[in-house]
Amino acid sequence: MKFWNQNLKNLSPYVPGEQPKNITQIIKLNSNENPYPPSEKIFTCTNELTRTSLSTYPDSSCSQLKNDLSERYQVPVSQIFCGNGSDEILSLIFRSFLAPEDLILIPYPNYTLYETLAQSYGIPYRSVQSDNQFMISFKKLAEGNSKAIFFSNPNAPTGRFYAIEQIAEFCHSYSGLFILDEAYIDFGGESGIKLLSELDNLIVIRTFSKSFSLAGLRLGYAFSSPSIIEGLKRMKDSYNLSYLTQLLGSIAIQEYDYMTQNAKIIIQDRTYLTQKMEVLGFTVINSYANFIFVTHPKYSAKKLFSSLKEEGIFIRYFDQPRLTDYLRITIGKRADLDILLSSIQKIMRSYQ
Amino acid sequence: MKFWNQNLKNLSPYVPGEQPKNITQIIKLNSNENPYPPSEKIFTCTNELTRTSLSTYPDSSCSQLKNDLSERYQVPVSQIFCGNGSDEILSLIFRSFLAPEDLILIPYPNYTLYETLAQSYGIPYRSVQSDNQFMISFKKLAEGNSKAIFFSNPNAPTGRFYAIEQIAEFCHSYSGLFILDEAYIDFGGESGIKLLSELDNLIVIRTFSKSFSLAGLRLGYAFSSPSIIEGLKRMKDSYNLSYLTQLLGSIAIQEYDYMTQNAKIIIQDRTYLTQKMEVLGFTVINSYANFIFVTHPKYSAKKLFSSLKEEGIFIRYFDQPRLTDYLRITIGKRADLDILLSSIQKIMRSYQ
Repeated sequence: MKFWNQNLKNLSPYVPGEQPKNITQIIKLNSNENPYPPSEKIFTCTNELTRTSLSTYPDSSCSQLKNDLSERYQVPVSQIFCGNGSDEILSLIFRSFLAPEDLILIPYPNYTLYETLAQSYGIPYRSVQSDNQFMISFKKLAEGNSKAIFFSNPNAPTGRFYAIEQIAEFCHSYSGLFILDEAYIDFGGESGIKLLSELDNLIVIRTFSKSFSLAGLRLGYAFSSPSIIEGLKRMKDSYNLSYLTQLLGSIAIQEYDYMTQNAKIIIQDRTYLTQKMEVLGFTVINSYANFIFVTHPKYSAKKLFSSLKEEGIFIRYFDQPRLTDYLRITIGKRADLDILLSSIQKIMRSYQ
Repeated sequence: MKFWNQNLKNLSPYVPGEQPKNITQIIKLNSNENPYPPSEKIFTCTNELTRTSLSTYPDSSCSQLKNDLSERYQVPVSQIFCGNGSDEILSLIFRSFLAPEDLILIPYPNYTLYETLAQSYGIPYRSVQSDNQFMISFKKLAEGNSKAIFFSNPNAPTGRFYAIEQIAEFCHSYSGLFILDEAYIDFGGESGIKLLSELDNLIVIRTFSKSFSLAGLRLGYAFSSPSIIEGLKRMKDSYNLSYLTQLLGSIAIQEYDYMTQNAKIIIQDRTYLTQKMEVLGFTVINSYANFIFVTHPKYSAKKLFSSLKEEGIFIRYFDQPRLTDYLRITIGKRADLDILLSSIQKIMRSYQ
């Protein structure tokens, strides 16, 4: 660890999501990926590639992509930022707006990257515990003198959703930055975008990885006040998004209806899986995302997880405080969900 | 600037390179881009795209791409890191190995991003002046108690090259990190890669933007000790490189000979342009890169730059200390260089 600085030394090593190997037929319901491919138009993108489009530097300001986002979401271009995945945007928020003397609050449970980034930048943070229904109290978030709150809505990994009226009310009396991570918003939640006109401390973050079926592309975007967006633009690498990423992002936005159709199917299948799981005796947290978070009063989550893995079915188990009784299951295609359900039944029977 | 932290406030806003507009016929020799397109195989990449390749997360460890780089450059995979452009790698070096109590040295002139990053991370830095031939003294670099040195070889923007024996000798007695930025190495310089086996404080950084004709792709790579590479891996975003970037990078590496053929033409045309410019009375710094750095004893660099711009020919003028008498010209295609030369002659005549 020669040459490592203190932040790096303090950082827990990243454990990449399990990538199954050597199993010919697997069902992957562990990463909240979209089971439907992106629009066919994406795969014709090279028709639009000119010979020089890759040899020259890309547009550092992502003008076309931001225009498309502006038109779609009715947000001025000056209030839009695009990043190499929403992960890069989150990282730039730490780099631009936070300092080692600040405190940030992170509701628990949550997307673990917030904590990892706080560690990596040496920014003190405090977890704020949700109640036993995994609901967070906004009163608790108002306590202390925090500089920023990282809030996923719908929440990852529970799927819990908070009405934007509640968020609006909180933000109006909050003096710090409220980072509203809407990675899963297209699966039934209401967006906080409409609050941007009345709040200067709100950053809404979105991704193409979930509803747009483009996790492999690495493209995220953010809406905020012009001053916040200007800060992110100054801090970012000159050319943070490749020509292809910008091009495919624009195509995906133009194929918006295709995305919403897939989201609709996923929402229907979420209801389907929820009901079937409840019949099997699981308690299912009411989800607004493309996954469900479930627990069973009799069967060990960890054991179920391992047994399913042996069958070639990958779901997510979190070895974290308060989550060890739960499983997170991505809403895959109906046929895969049916295989999952019969496997669970088979496993339950084998335990008896 | 509400919510901006001190580093952001101190940061000079980024000025993107001039992107000419509304001129139908322009010659762009201002960004050191490759005038030749990437290999044709790049444009058939979508043949390799499966329907799921974009909807699932990319390989967070870039295994295939690192294997290809390992085979090509004979460096173990544990000593290779890939980033979203070499810019991201440089940024991660600051984040991982430097702290506000450290001092870094940057030979002047140089790639300005080193200073920008130092500012953005709040790391103190000192410029080390080159002599009037733009050669840097290694003795000067040994002075003070620096934690890292950012050294481009060949140098940007002068094109000066330092023998790797000199660099090896210096690094052996230097206790800090030596960042050897080889963005332009394929145009005639000798790489420091062979020093990796004897030095643990060397980071060699490369890019696909110049010799591989893929500036639009955003792909950089670094070679260093396993400990340094492990640090970068821990600090990076989980999925910093898109599926497409990894795929196209692998194709480009497989098309290595195509790259070296283009580099050879550019080296020939560099000699050609150098000779023609000397005939016109310019002093041309001996360049090992895909550009030349020139000055004329009689004609103002700034005026020449403006006059050429009016003709639709874009070269680079730096409004920076010691550089205001110089122009940097990218080695474009021979036909474009000939147009440049006749335009310069025409402009010179018009001054008389």
